[in-house]
Amino acid sequence: MQAEIISIGDELLIGQVINTNQAFIAQQLQTVGIEVRRMVTVGDDESAILTALEEAFNRVDVVTVTGGLGPTHDDVTRSAICKFFKTDLVLDGEALRRVRALFERRGLPIINLNEDQALVPRGCTVIQNNHGTAPGYFFERNGKHMIVMPGVPFEMEGMMKEFVLPFFRQRTTGKVILHRTLKTTGIGESFLAQEIGNVQTLFSPTEGISLAFLPSPTGVRLRITAQGSRVEEVKQKIARVESQLRARVEKYIYATDEEELEAIVGKLLTERKLTIAVAESCTGGLIADRLTNVPGSSAYFERGLIVYSNESKIAELGVPEGVLKSHGAVSREVAEAMAFGIRTKANVDIGLSTTGIAGPTGGTTEKPVGLVWIGYSDRNETLALKFNFGDDRRRTKERAAQAALELVRRRVLKM
Amino acid sequence: MQAEIISIGDELLIGQVINTNQAFIAQQLQTVGIEVRRMVTVGDDESAILTALEEAFNRVDVVTVTGGLGPTHDDVTRSAICKFFKTDLVLDGEALRRVRALFERRGLPIINLNEDQALVPRGCTVIQNNHGTAPGYFFERNGKHMIVMPGVPFEMEGMMKEFVLPFFRQRTTGKVILHRTLKTTGIGESFLAQEIGNVQTLFSPTEGISLAFLPSPTGVRLRITAQGSRVEEVKQKIARVESQLRARVEKYIYATDEEELEAIVGKLLTERKLTIAVAESCTGGLIADRLTNVPGSSAYFERGLIVYSNESKIAELGVPEGVLKSHGAVSREVAEAMAFGIRTKANVDIGLSTTGIAGPTGGTTEKPVGLVWIGYSDRNETLALKFNFGDDRRRTKERAAQAALELVRRRVLKM
Repeated sequence: MQAEIISIGDELLIGQVINTNQAFIAQQLQTVGIEVRRMVTVGDDESAILTALEEAFNRVDVVTVTGGLGPTHDDVTRSAICKFFKTDLVLDGEALRRVRALFERRGLPIINLNEDQALVPRGCTVIQNNHGTAPGYFFERNGKHMIVMPGVPFEMEGMMKEFVLPFFRQRTTGKVILHRTLKTTGIGESFLAQEIGNVQTLFSPTEGISLAFLPSPTGVRLRITAQGSRVEEVKQKIARVESQLRARVEKYIYATDEEELEAIVGKLLTERKLTIAVAESCTGGLIADRLTNVPGSSAYFERGLIVYSNESKIAELGVPEGVLKSHGAVSREVAEAMAFGIRTKANVDIGLSTTGIAGPTGGTTEKPVGLVWIGYSDRNETLALKFNFGDDRRRTKERAAQAALELVRRRVLKM
Repeated sequence: MQAEIISIGDELLIGQVINTNQAFIAQQLQTVGIEVRRMVTVGDDESAILTALEEAFNRVDVVTVTGGLGPTHDDVTRSAICKFFKTDLVLDGEALRRVRALFERRGLPIINLNEDQALVPRGCTVIQNNHGTAPGYFFERNGKHMIVMPGVPFEMEGMMKEFVLPFFRQRTTGKVILHRTLKTTGIGESFLAQEIGNVQTLFSPTEGISLAFLPSPTGVRLRITAQGSRVEEVKQKIARVESQLRARVEKYIYATDEEELEAIVGKLLTERKLTIAVAESCTGGLIADRLTNVPGSSAYFERGLIVYSNESKIAELGVPEGVLKSHGAVSREVAEAMAFGIRTKANVDIGLSTTGIAGPTGGTTEKPVGLVWIGYSDRNETLALKFNFGDDRRRTKERAAQAALELVRRRVLKM
């Protein structure tokens, strides 16, 4: 089955509110084998809503509508729905009972405006609202379905989980769609594509498999999508493509699906009983911030130093003043001395360091804005790698923190 | 003028990515008097893209298109655009020069796939990309406009600010809509509303003014929106409401519009020639990260320590072992000792510290998850404030970092 998602609300059209509902609904519909083909947003305007309803109901089997069901004057979705289905309003006793009970529980007086919400389009199946006052409506006409829900995210989410998904889970036999994301870092989109080669060598056009490249400042995600009639069969397709991709670009893949690099590094350090400390200059605390986002990180993260001034590099880390003078703070020598210094000072297994020119000022021809040295030190080796992360201060910090964590992952894994 | 916003990408249709671009574009178009009527999202599918383009270009004066301009096989927007305008591709010399220069700056080799990005639809005005490789395209046909941009948010945002808005600012007359946001922190939405009182005492319903409360984990934004026929008149309306709001809740307002608290604190420190150093436990580097996001912060940010272990609190900051034992690491005494310790060690004017229980484990009845002490020390005073930031690890870090920076702002301003 195919679906369209319609969102209604002036607050969306002026960009006041970011539409998270449509992503949620799309994710959920997929889990019951319904493929979203289009998403449309219109304002609280009856004729715009009617046009969107007509176009969508013509094209697909399932239409979801959210927003504009509230009690105030600017909510016109209900009347548009009545016009679309050529019906009128009727009082739903159960909805009325629930509205009254909700107000009583909260100790609030109830006004007519609230009771009005129990009026629903005649001929719909009412979707009761377990998290708020406005009920939803469900229509089934000639094998097509329309689901109308409030725009308040947790009310809509409740209706999806409690009513919509169970309904379609029973109905849909048909298609199963699954995704798998491989997260890469340290390689640009085009180079990754080149290493992977022609995607037609991974799967044929008729197999119901696709591969998408999703770039971000800290890496490119590879998303494998496969469809078929049975879950096992679809999982096998994905596993096959994943293993082919790993054979070609394994080194760059640090995580799958929603896993973060700091969690992967944390898991590695925990497994191998290693401890870490960081000495950051240009990343300014971002590496420590990311490492400490992971619950339980206090077991392996011992301390972090943000050594912005030369004095602090000398006093905190024992970077020799002569090295700072002869090579400059942004140099291989200083990055290595920082990594070694923090490791020995904190008495940990791994020392990690960054020194660079985050910008926007401070760059020279020889050492431009975006130049970053990342240092690594363990019992066996002390080294530093050079990068250029471009001219945006925040992005340079993000890319440098990512590259530093990735360096730890690769050194620990001896990649 | 009226607009439609088209977003392209399978990652949007499957709900993997939340569409923030459409809200950004809508906000920005409004500032030049363009009203968004509809937003549509389709997948990386040429015929779906063509249908969306045709429908939109028929209905409105301005159509924006984002996404699907990357170098890999799954990016089909460019070919759909060529079909729509019945044109072919031509090499843009300037775009090619920029792609090559970008790769050179980053020290990366360039491959054909990258150079391909300099191929643009014949007959368009090329929007150069100052933040990435794929150029944008601008078409003007019979008084209608189509703007095609990459889907990567910061690349699209650059093109909007540098090309699209200046273009339309010259063209549009008619209605002026302006916004002004006052950013508050340290007070909840309902209490802020109570302090402000009835909004009808601020403006009358017929004045074309509105006030929105936009809550977030680190504070509530107050957005004033006003409209009218002339910029000066609208600005005056906003200024009047702003001064009334300031008279009621000035203390909580730390910034306006897009300004960040770390930039405000940085400006204060620079003006007063003060230096700062931070000692973070539960915030794990986030305060230092935020402070060093500000260009020029090296002038006042001297160093930061992330002292996760008790050993590091003792060794780095001279927190007495007896205090740690008798009061525990999460206590007023330790927060004050940390703030005092980092100030004297780094020889700066202000020492700032955090110690708390970020969770999810480690809480007790007496010291629950979310408990945070924030310490402050300057030449005249050393103090600590107690907070409870709830049970989400990342949100606790964010709220604690915000409260710590706000503490510096208020102490420096003697508020």
